Amino acid sequence: MPHPFQVTARCGTTRARTGRLSLVHGTVDTPVFMPVGTLGTVKALAPEDLTAAGARIILGNTYHLYLRPGCDVIERFSGLHRFMNWDRPILTDSGGFQVFSLAKLTRITEEGARFQSHIDGSSHLLTPEKSIEIQITLDSDILMCLDQCIAYPAERRAAREALEITARWAERCLRTWRETSGEKNALFGIVQGGMYEDLRRMSAEALTAMEFSGYALGGLSVGEPNQMMYDVAEAALPLLPDDRPKYIMGVGTPEDLVELTARGADMFDCVMPTRNARNGQLFTRRGTLNIANSRHRTDTAPIDPECGCYTCRNYSRAYLRHLYQSREILAYRLNTLHNLHYYLSLVAGMREAIRCGRFAGFRKDFYNAREAASEK
Amino acid sequence: MPHPFQVTARCGTTRARTGRLSLVHGTVDTPVFMPVGTLGTVKALAPEDLTAAGARIILGNTYHLYLRPGCDVIERFSGLHRFMNWDRPILTDSGGFQVFSLAKLTRITEEGARFQSHIDGSSHLLTPEKSIEIQITLDSDILMCLDQCIAYPAERRAAREALEITARWAERCLRTWRETSGEKNALFGIVQGGMYEDLRRMSAEALTAMEFSGYALGGLSVGEPNQMMYDVAEAALPLLPDDRPKYIMGVGTPEDLVELTARGADMFDCVMPTRNARNGQLFTRRGTLNIANSRHRTDTAPIDPECGCYTCRNYSRAYLRHLYQSREILAYRLNTLHNLHYYLSLVAGMREAIRCGRFAGFRKDFYNAREAASEK
Repeated sequence: MPHPFQVTARCGTTRARTGRLSLVHGTVDTPVFMPVGTLGTVKALAPEDLTAAGARIILGNTYHLYLRPGCDVIERFSGLHRFMNWDRPILTDSGGFQVFSLAKLTRITEEGARFQSHIDGSSHLLTPEKSIEIQITLDSDILMCLDQCIAYPAERRAAREALEITARWAERCLRTWRETSGEKNALFGIVQGGMYEDLRRMSAEALTAMEFSGYALGGLSVGEPNQMMYDVAEAALPLLPDDRPKYIMGVGTPEDLVELTARGADMFDCVMPTRNARNGQLFTRRGTLNIANSRHRTDTAPIDPECGCYTCRNYSRAYLRHLYQSREILAYRLNTLHNLHYYLSLVAGMREAIRCGRFAGFRKDFYNAREAASEK
Repeated sequence: MPHPFQVTARCGTTRARTGRLSLVHGTVDTPVFMPVGTLGTVKALAPEDLTAAGARIILGNTYHLYLRPGCDVIERFSGLHRFMNWDRPILTDSGGFQVFSLAKLTRITEEGARFQSHIDGSSHLLTPEKSIEIQITLDSDILMCLDQCIAYPAERRAAREALEITARWAERCLRTWRETSGEKNALFGIVQGGMYEDLRRMSAEALTAMEFSGYALGGLSVGEPNQMMYDVAEAALPLLPDDRPKYIMGVGTPEDLVELTARGADMFDCVMPTRNARNGQLFTRRGTLNIANSRHRTDTAPIDPECGCYTCRNYSRAYLRHLYQSREILAYRLNTLHNLHYYLSLVAGMREAIRCGRFAGFRKDFYNAREAASEK
């Protein structure tokens, strides 16, 4: 199993750390935020936009790409990189989460997940083997094991069954990866267990008994209170091997990234910066603003005068509001560029602070800037 | 009146010519195609995209910008250039065409055009004076006189009344421009007269009696047969002063650009390359293709292997089809980049051919490439 991770610095007062992931398509410094490129494009952006915003790795969705354009298409390009013109690393999820959240009539058996496409109702079976095979076709730098996600709240019994099937599927994923992948691209295991700390421990023990390149916490940010998510992460992250990257899936807000980095997480992905951008919600150091608000109508200032992104260097709030109100396509690109720049600068700032031994101060400043703004 | 135009070369066998327009925000070689930036953005593109595609001048729509975001907003930016981050020349239309085609309950009097906004139904009066004042607020490099457009077919009497009011409005535009513009930005007059050659002559005489920086033919490409448009242009273009730029408004297809350049036209604008791009219609030397067509599903080739645009250098038909079928925002940008590159390369090719004395050959090659493709 590739062992692509090295811890490069540690915070003295929290579990925060920096590290370096060495992947087939390049190296990635952690903590890292991975923009979500669901259908072979981070919505509204071209690859050059991502590079300019500082993205080093993006996420692709196996479920979506399997249905559209289909593996036979991506195979012609020897993988997702050439298909979408992105030459840096890609992590793909297993498809499990979308099977549970998007597909219709999903039925879980030991064999896998049978579901109907949300696009055309066609019937499909996603097994652990199939998920790995698809991800190998995509030529992901990091593949994820198929897991069973559960809703929140979940009964203890359902959470336990889900983590057990997740562990058995992980073994099948590992075997398929060994037999078919060439073993050069990394494979991560996923810890489940709902909000039950002892079940998270049980899942972590089962997964770490198998050797994976890295480990993820799945099933967080599914509707539970924020503090509960932090508590589960705080309990579960130390159960994962210190020398492997620790990835919290589908998380989160800027605060979540700061709090979970403090608890030892290395990797994040979330649709929030990109989706919110398309809804006119823009992130700044001093909190979020809604560009549709009429108070921006004649405002010649940028979204954030302290921001160095392409959007803030070249466009005013008045122009961005006009584009957004007119539903102009450029609005989505400019807003997305800004929000991703914000997220990627946030994790870059954390990396720098951890390296320099001032992460605690960084965290304090992060909250102070927001409080000062809300007092205004 | 600024006299910004110089003829730089002439075709020996047709009326085609090259020229140079010296405008406040830069120089523009003609024949030129002006991408349409209706609402302060050429749909789906950023200014850098336009520059990369070779755009030297773009068009803004006075009617649209007056309603959204409104002149008070653009005034804060001292004009449209800074508002939209475009530092090259801009031509604005007068608003007349949209008042007739988009607005509701339009009523023409000697005073001007009273209409209801297509957005919120609010009532407005667009007079010649008002149109010029708005265009001065936009700080256009080239302002257009308010004209009265008529539908096709039109009775002779209606065509005559429209050209007469257009001439009287042109005088009022000229007066307003002299009194309020600083007289540095150019003002063009518009020749009307429907499809009646003698009325076109009457309109041209009235307009050229006033001194404008350039002259446009309005009221073409409004539903008449193509050959009729060519005939009207062929008759009317020589009636305009040889030392002034001649602009055919709202035209046209690639063939129209070639045919009308041969008849002595210097400037064009049309939504066709941008709008068709958003509908998946892509232009190539060998004709147009529909990217949604299933025959592109697994095609690893670019739209046009001979095209040097960003889209063709980096993306396959299969990827573009996937983006288009998935309604991904990036589809609109990549398709628009390609189509504008095609149009801008076409006029650049004509300029080069005219300069080198081989325009007739260029025109022949243009048709040959299409015929060869359609025979396949």
